Amino acid sequence: MIDIETKQMMEFANNNPFARALDIEVTHMEQESGRAALEVTVTAKHLNPHGTLHGGVLSTMADIAMGVAVRTLGRVGVTVNLNMNFLAPGNLGEKIIAQGVVVHQGNTLLSTECTITREDHILAQATGLFFVIK
Amino acid sequence: MIDIETKQMMEFANNNPFARALDIEVTHMEQESGRAALEVTVTAKHLNPHGTLHGGVLSTMADIAMGVAVRTLGRVGVTVNLNMNFLAPGNLGEKIIAQGVVVHQGNTLLSTECTITREDHILAQATGLFFVIK
Amino acid sequence: MIDIETKQMMEFANNNPFARALDIEVTHMEQESGRAALEVTVTAKHLNPHGTLHGGVLSTMADIAMGVAVRTLGRVGVTVNLNMNFLAPGNLGEKIIAQGVVVHQGNTLLSTECTITREDHILAQATGLFFVIK
Amino acid sequence: MIDIETKQMMEFANNNPFARALDIEVTHMEQESGRAALEVTVTAKHLNPHGTLHGGVLSTMADIAMGVAVRTLGRVGVTVNLNMNFLAPGNLGEKIIAQGVVVHQGNTLLSTECTITREDHILAQATGLFFVIK
Repeated sequence: MIDIETKQMMEFANNNPFARALDIEVTHMEQESGRAALEVTVTAKHLNPHGTLHGGVLSTMADIAMGVAVRTLGRVGVTVNLNMNFLAPGNLGEKIIAQGVVVHQGNTLLSTECTITREDHILAQATGLFFVIK
Repeated sequence: MIDIETKQMMEFANNNPFARALDIEVTHMEQESGRAALEVTVTAKHLNPHGTLHGGVLSTMADIAMGVAVRTLGRVGVTVNLNMNFLAPGNLGEKIIAQGVVVHQGNTLLSTECTITREDHILAQATGLFFVIK
Repeated sequence: MIDIETKQMMEFANNNPFARALDIEVTHMEQESGRAALEVTVTAKHLNPHGTLHGGVLSTMADIAMGVAVRTLGRVGVTVNLNMNFLAPGNLGEKIIAQGVVVHQGNTLLSTECTITREDHILAQATGLFFVIK
Repeated sequence: MIDIETKQMMEFANNNPFARALDIEVTHMEQESGRAALEVTVTAKHLNPHGTLHGGVLSTMADIAMGVAVRTLGRVGVTVNLNMNFLAPGNLGEKIIAQGVVVHQGNTLLSTECTITREDHILAQATGLFFVIK
């Protein structure tokens, strides 16, 4: 069961116009855990000219998954660096999951990682640096 | 004046479902130049929860600008690494320009850079590595 | 107990002129594990002008730890991308450990991660992309 | 002719134990220019097991070239992110040059780029993020 505070936190996290435009949904965040998860199901609008999932969708998922992970710690950050390694293509109709985790908390910078998978297959690995604004 | 081959190349580059969903338009590519440019005007759907341009839009623009720059050389690549430094926020209504350039051509890997600006102000700098598929 | 093949593999890995110049020693690699570990004890030559461990030493450790992890899989790669997030300073006299792991094996590219620590404290996180040469 | 302040600034920049251990020399920095250059001549100690210039040397050069470029602006930063794309091998006896430039100055973060060449050939491209400490 998800408690009320976690539910409010998830509603807040899902109140993201660009995530909504891409049908990306925050599915998991737990207070003080430094962890969050997102999902998207690949539809026609998410595709690149090769007919596979666009790297921009994966980059967006990584950015959000890591930013939401930061929020579970009661902190708010803006992304200053995002590094993406694209390892395998995603395809139409697949459910894609991004899992973000905070690796290190400094006073002004937080460091994060994200793994993006489809079933047990890794599609992308990412790292992030967030500058704390509150 | 844009010649017919360049026009066909730009129509091809704009035939990108995810770029169209984001209203990103390829505005410049020239055969054999290794350079390309894109534009987007920031609307409500492009925003993050802070009310500024989402980093996922900037990442998508960088990925496309660099991939299109690769295509001007008659090569087709898939992005294997994308590194983004986010330097300043973009705002509603602004016109954002991404300029991609090929830095190095190897047999199987190409290296690229991208600068994203609004007027004369830099919003993000990016680098990319592309694996050549043809 | 380390078997003979592992011992030979470690001697080969330690036969690295730049690693020797920096007193970096491969301490762990196991056949087919995709994992390796290195150590260095910080001495005066490793310092930056602030008097702390130079980021170049950390970058070198990450590069080697990930490359050696690739070798445990019977493959040899050259680094094409290295991304470093520097999280905390290392100090004179401390023993620094880098642990590399292969995240994904493609036909021509391998993706890796590395965590660098001093005792239980993380100093740097890294990712790598390796191009397979055999 | 190099003026006295620039000379003092270069002596300070060359007072870097790890750079000295690697025979890396700051050859160019100009007050308020946001630009700096370094050189190294590849000797046996700089080599990797393939017999070419170790990526750790290139990473160190990029880190220093960009950090020294930051100093020309009268600011001092610590590297928080370093991204390296390795494009071609360096060889024994070659003179390698790294040129760093500040791309963007924020209040607390500066963004930089570096190109490393041997004659007219590019060996590596890098980006950096520096956190300002004064």
